[in-house]
Order: sequence, then structure tokens, then C-alpha cells
Amino acid sequence: MSELDLIRWLQQRLGKSYGPLIHVGLGDDAAVLRCPDDRDFVITTDMILEGSCFLIEHGLRRIGRKALAINLSDLAAMAAEPVAAVVSLAIPRSMSLSQVQEIYEGMIQLAQEFGVALVGGDTNTWTGPLAVNVTLVGAIERHRAVLRQGAQPGDWLFVTGPLGGSILGKHLNFTPRVREARRLLNLVTIHAMIDISDGLARDLHHLCEASRCGAILDSTKIPVSAAAYQLQDGRSPLEHALSDGEDFELLLAVAQPDGQHLLEQQPLQDLGTTLYHIGECIAQGVYIRTATGELQGLPPLGYLHQLAN
Amino acid sequence: MSELDLIRWLQQRLGKSYGPLIHVGLGDDAAVLRCPDDRDFVITTDMILEGSCFLIEHGLRRIGRKALAINLSDLAAMAAEPVAAVVSLAIPRSMSLSQVQEIYEGMIQLAQEFGVALVGGDTNTWTGPLAVNVTLVGAIERHRAVLRQGAQPGDWLFVTGPLGGSILGKHLNFTPRVREARRLLNLVTIHAMIDISDGLARDLHHLCEASRCGAILDSTKIPVSAAAYQLQDGRSPLEHALSDGEDFELLLAVAQPDGQHLLEQQPLQDLGTTLYHIGECIAQGVYIRTATGELQGLPPLGYLHQLAN
Repeated sequence: MSELDLIRWLQQRLGKSYGPLIHVGLGDDAAVLRCPDDRDFVITTDMILEGSCFLIEHGLRRIGRKALAINLSDLAAMAAEPVAAVVSLAIPRSMSLSQVQEIYEGMIQLAQEFGVALVGGDTNTWTGPLAVNVTLVGAIERHRAVLRQGAQPGDWLFVTGPLGGSILGKHLNFTPRVREARRLLNLVTIHAMIDISDGLARDLHHLCEASRCGAILDSTKIPVSAAAYQLQDGRSPLEHALSDGEDFELLLAVAQPDGQHLLEQQPLQDLGTTLYHIGECIAQGVYIRTATGELQGLPPLGYLHQLAN
Repeated sequence: MSELDLIRWLQQRLGKSYGPLIHVGLGDDAAVLRCPDDRDFVITTDMILEGSCFLIEHGLRRIGRKALAINLSDLAAMAAEPVAAVVSLAIPRSMSLSQVQEIYEGMIQLAQEFGVALVGGDTNTWTGPLAVNVTLVGAIERHRAVLRQGAQPGDWLFVTGPLGGSILGKHLNFTPRVREARRLLNLVTIHAMIDISDGLARDLHHLCEASRCGAILDSTKIPVSAAAYQLQDGRSPLEHALSDGEDFELLLAVAQPDGQHLLEQQPLQDLGTTLYHIGECIAQGVYIRTATGELQGLPPLGYLHQLAN
């Protein structure tokens, strides 16, 4: 069994049903994407690693799914529509072709759900642990990509779902908020958006830093997931909601009238998604208002990869 | 030190000098590429792994350089012009920020040489060895991407340089044949092209399989590198030239009149590159003509990653 067997299997598994934006798919030195006339391409990449982002015991399909899902979440944060992905694998030598196919099956199922064409990749074996890298390309109407910058004082802040405790399962089976973002793009003017991968507090800091503004969160309005209550590790459920990574909900800022509209209409209900109004943007500083009405500074809690000095 | 320090350093190091095709670069959830009107985008990805593709002793700059160079070689094989790259790193926990910067320095130097904008990435630390993944996007005049398919019986086969023994050094410091491919695209009609990453014999088989044709190589015309003579490991220099991977020269097929033109004009000499006419395409079968004129079957010698059963 070799990487060629894997490529042949993939070509059969995927069929020839590429969309109009894919001119050349799997199997050449590179894929060719037709540039649409009225849209830009958006590109993002994410790598997940055995031991730090997943364990083999989580199941190979779920690992493959996660590798694509986290990239879809980044596209959602730009309000882009998924187009094509390339996949690189570093495979432990003990792993069989059928196990590698399991990783791909998890990815392919999600890819089909979100209209992503798998157009290329790189398969390597080594003595190290499993590493999966996905690079995802999406399309966005020209000049309409939603950035982290653009939030303004007075804007309302929303999140697309409950937060905290994703380690108990959500980090492996979350639904990337692509459909939600696409619909919001057409309903309101999204001033700024980010997906919550490092933790609400930290990603809010990212958004505020890029937008050169501040924010106040209302602790009583932050949706805390049931999983955050289950953890019972000495930190409060709210702390988990503020600092746990990998929830992959969207955090967005819109002008107040748009915010009121979203709150009243809840236009994502048919997707199973509730919009939670959790705070406002201010000129500077990042704070949280406690249940008793007190304002406290909110540091950028959350996850960061640390490098040695 | 955290991944944020690395991103800040990268932003300062790279400056704001993005070209016209880069609308949003480093630092958001994804980068935004402006789609050109008259061109398509080409996308390729390659991962290199400590232990199998490089050793830390090779030097971090050369490792970073190689990670980008192998992707540039894939773009060259499509005759595309490099545009933008995203980089994912799996970094051993013992590695310092300055060591990671060394990897990037090697990459940035080559990126600037070839006009590649680094527009995003993902930085991870773990207990495993070093892994570097680069995804590269290029642009190609619409409908002009050169594929592996398209070679026809009677075509002349060329390679862009001597082959074999790259393990002695070339695999780390080769010059990707991007400029050569771009010039050839404008001089002749390239029927099919591939970069020699797995070995001449194997990559010739890939080209023939995609083109549904065969080929005869002339053993006396294959340029054998000095390194292939130095190896002295029981295999002949010609065997090394036929089967060693990672030479990253281009193998291309053109019609005979174009071939004669290339051979007489040697239009890549000012780039330091000689075109070698090494054989012809035929209807089927892949052969090599020995020095005594005998035709022998040429199996797909070369490197493949093997997966367990």
C-alpha cells in the first residue's frame, strides 16, 4: 500500500463532481481554481496535532472532521463560502491505509455538507505522532469580507451559542457557523467578526485590538453551556465560558439598530442557532459587568501556544 | 513568549508591502486574495517532517527554505507565478522563539526572491518532532495551466538540469524552476509538465499515465549530476539519476519543432539552466535505450510513502 493507493481511492471516493470554480482537482502537481468575476478568495490554514488537539482514542473520523471544521470556522468568521481544501498528513508508520481512509471519511462527510471540494494534498509517513493540516479556500463577494477590525463604540456584541467546557465533546463535533455567517452577511452590516477558538475573553481582545476599541461584557447575558457546569474543577462555569477555547462560535459586532433587529427576529432559529447579545463596544478598555453591576477589567484569558525563550 | 509574539514579529518583519492581489494579509481569521480578471489561481500544499525530509542539523533556515521551495517547484510544474503562502508549524516544546524565527527567515528570504506574500499561518507546540506545512497559491493566465496530461507520441522530453544524488545537498538548496517555467510558457507550447520530486523514472510514469502515452528515454542523454557519481553505494550514477527523489527539476514534453527550437536556442542559459533532451513520447510503454542501443522496460523506480496494510 502506498500514497498512490490513497490518491486513487480518494479520486474514486470523491468522483468527478467538482463545482464550476474547480478547473483541476486532485492528482496533478497543483489544483487550479477558476477565479470568479465578482468575488475574492479567502484562504486559511490550521493544523491539529495528536496529544495537544486530539487523542487517537477520539476516533479517526472525528479527528478528520475536526481538522476541516476548524478551518470552516475561520471562513465563517470572514463570512465566506467554502470552495476547496488541500490536506497534508503526517502519518505514524504503524497506521494502515484503512485508518487513513477513516480520517478522510470524517473530512469528506463534512466537506460534502458544506460544499468543499478536496482538490489536493500531501501524504507523508514518519515515526512521529499524527498531524493533520488543512488549508481551506473560500469565496466572498468582492469587498465584503468581514474582518476583525471595524467594530465601533456603541456596537452591540453577539455570540452564536453557549460557551465553555468544549473539552467535554463540542471541540470534536461542533457545527462551524458558516451558514449563520452567510445569512447574517445579507441581513445586517457586520462591523467585525471573529470565531471563538482561543476563548471568549482572548478573542474579544483580538477583535478590540484590531478595531481599536474596547468592550463591556454583561456577565448575566453570556450564555454558559451545560458542559461548563459539568466540569466542576474549581473554576466557575462563567470562568469557563470566558476562557475555554475551541467553542467555535462567532463573536460579532453590529450597530445598535441592527442588533435590536437580530435580537427581535432571531433569524438563525431555523438553523438551530440563537443569537445572544452579550455586551457593547466602548472607546477603550475591556471590562465585564458583574451580576451586582460592578465593572471589572477583563484580561485576555484563554489559550495560547507558548514558545520557549 | 507566545504565538502572538511570533505573529507580531512576522508582521514587522514582512512590513505592509503586499502586492495588488493581497487584500488582507497576516493577522485576521483568514487572508483575502483579490481574484484577477484574466487569471486562475493554482493551489498546492506540501509538508516536510523532521527525520524523514530533514534533520535539525541541516539548519533551521535551510529547513524553512525547503518547505517553501518544494511548493514553488509544484507551481513551476504548472507554469504558474507565485502569489501567496500560508504556513503551519508543529513546533517541539524545546524550541525557542528565535529558532522558530530562523525557520521563517529561511522561508522569507526565498519568498521575497520569488514574490510570495506570507499571508497567514498556524503555530502549534507539541511534544512531537518539527513539522512544517506550506500551502502556496499562484496565478496562471486563464486556460494556460500546464498539466501532467497532454503529452503526445512524438513529443520530445526535456529536463531542466542534472539528476541524482540530491541527498548530498541539493534537496536543501535547489532553486525552484519557476522562472524557467514562466519563460517556457511564453516561448513554446508545453504539452505536459511535472517536477521531479519522486525520481525521474517514477515521475515520467506519472506524466505518461496522465497523458495516456508511453516514452523512451535515451540513457546516454540523461544528465547525471556530479553528486550521483559521488555516492558510490553500489548503484550506478545513472541508476541514481533515474530513481533519486528531490531533484526538483522539471520534466516536460513539447512537440518536436518546439523541441528543436529549445535545443538550438537554449533560452534559459541566462538563468543558469540548460535544457536536456532526454527522450521521446511513444504510444505506450516506458523504456530506456541503453548505451548499446537496446530497449529495456523502465519501471517506476523512485520514492513512495508506504502505508501499512
